[in-house]
Amino acid sequence: MTILTLLDHAAVFVFALTGALVASRAQLDVVGFVFLATLTAVGGGTLRDLLLDRPVFWLEAPSYLGSAGIAALIVYFTAHLLESRLKTLFWLDAAALGSAVAAGVGVAIEAELRWPIVLVMGVATGTFGGLMRDVVANEVPLILRSGELYVTTALAGSLTALIALQFGLALPICLALAALTTFLLRAGSLAFGWNLPRYKPSPPRTF
Amino acid sequence: MTILTLLDHAAVFVFALTGALVASRAQLDVVGFVFLATLTAVGGGTLRDLLLDRPVFWLEAPSYLGSAGIAALIVYFTAHLLESRLKTLFWLDAAALGSAVAAGVGVAIEAELRWPIVLVMGVATGTFGGLMRDVVANEVPLILRSGELYVTTALAGSLTALIALQFGLALPICLALAALTTFLLRAGSLAFGWNLPRYKPSPPRTF
Amino acid sequence: MTILTLLDHAAVFVFALTGALVASRAQLDVVGFVFLATLTAVGGGTLRDLLLDRPVFWLEAPSYLGSAGIAALIVYFTAHLLESRLKTLFWLDAAALGSAVAAGVGVAIEAELRWPIVLVMGVATGTFGGLMRDVVANEVPLILRSGELYVTTALAGSLTALIALQFGLALPICLALAALTTFLLRAGSLAFGWNLPRYKPSPPRTF
Repeated sequence: MTILTLLDHAAVFVFALTGALVASRAQLDVVGFVFLATLTAVGGGTLRDLLLDRPVFWLEAPSYLGSAGIAALIVYFTAHLLESRLKTLFWLDAAALGSAVAAGVGVAIEAELRWPIVLVMGVATGTFGGLMRDVVANEVPLILRSGELYVTTALAGSLTALIALQFGLALPICLALAALTTFLLRAGSLAFGWNLPRYKPSPPRTF
Repeated sequence: MTILTLLDHAAVFVFALTGALVASRAQLDVVGFVFLATLTAVGGGTLRDLLLDRPVFWLEAPSYLGSAGIAALIVYFTAHLLESRLKTLFWLDAAALGSAVAAGVGVAIEAELRWPIVLVMGVATGTFGGLMRDVVANEVPLILRSGELYVTTALAGSLTALIALQFGLALPICLALAALTTFLLRAGSLAFGWNLPRYKPSPPRTF
Repeated sequence: MTILTLLDHAAVFVFALTGALVASRAQLDVVGFVFLATLTAVGGGTLRDLLLDRPVFWLEAPSYLGSAGIAALIVYFTAHLLESRLKTLFWLDAAALGSAVAAGVGVAIEAELRWPIVLVMGVATGTFGGLMRDVVANEVPLILRSGELYVTTALAGSLTALIALQFGLALPICLALAALTTFLLRAGSLAFGWNLPRYKPSPPRTF
């Protein structure tokens, strides 16, 4: 199993957990859990593969779908044990975001794409699964939550991989650093409220 | 006309009717009817073709677009005659769902894809047109309506085709059974409230 | 720089301005501005390229991404100077819509696609970036605003290009006419309330 397959598997499984948690919030039935889990799990990587005109990753290896299904069932039967499903959702999403960003960056680097494309692939692969989950489930997308870092962490993670690569580090290490940076920044934002200044119009306005 | 073309045509026309009904609810103008009808009509099949890296079905045969346009006009001029547009929408959506699930399953079987992929293609082709319709029109997606079977019917329909295929039935019969199973399950849910237990957290919670 | 590249660049830059204006309304941070600007900017053209199985335009030329990023920063630092951000958003969106419709039509004509496909490509390329912007940002999509022309202007613009082509005009002129028609119709709708009759059910109903 290569580092890229590993990252894809990690992102799929953990994003599926988050999709199922959102399904529990919408009080769906068990098939709804599996649907939303799978959509979230494969959304970002599917977009990446469509954009790069590669074979979609889960078509080649249906075990990804099995993994998403198992994650959905685990949540279906255990979510009631959680102290706070919302908090669990945020933290799992942070872990999935890190893995998915690294998976997007890794594919783009292996395809020898230019650095702006690598950044976009990292951010898009990381964020689109969760974005589709939130749009379909009528939730406010995590990327819109004010006073939190989200897209920024994906961008910083992607950038970290590129910088590490410049320093001659091996690809797996670069990708691990990307995942870690993304996760730690997001964790800092969740735990300590790290953020960037939000846009504020100087005077109050009607818009 | 092969069975697959027939199913695609049926799904396009009936999904277009549902898109136009949603447009009538949003009080759009006639071009808005055509837009939403077309989006709904070709959404699921387009996703299927992009995922499988096939030529998008309506690019090869623009008659699909004409068919969606005609459906939109029919609804524009006759929707006021309906007793209940919402009820009509649900029943037409059920019929379109059945055709689209069978169309997705059929393409996946012909491409000799493995069974988990066949199931996903059935469900995705069936549900994404309606999902895009509801998301764009700011409606609660049908898949989220509580106490109803929706994704489950698509999954059961896809599974039926696979089982029928194992029993050696011809593909057109397998696909007809898939469409019928999907439609009948959805009809039972609409008419008699058939459903699966929804997720309910044991104690009341703040999440 | 060909006319198509020019149109893509114009659409990307101006749509990015609108994405950033919506980000200002959602009070995102600067990275959120860049994210929403880029999504809006490349959304329509990306869909067009995926549907037509061409290489996605910004993968080949990352300068599009730079252009979207610069547009986002301009808005981030100057939006507070605007009299009305909402009005600015509408007018910029009209200009971007015109360019994007022409870009979609141009690519479809160059690929020698049939006229219904050309119309769909014009409308889809024109409208999907803004649609994704509004769906992701939880805004009511512009295409749903009642009493305004939106999709109609894109359709009329696409049609204009096809008619001009029949009269033997050169492609760049046809595309300029498409962009102009789209923009002027949308401008007329914004300034003078031009519209098509909306669907109104005869009697009041519960649906």
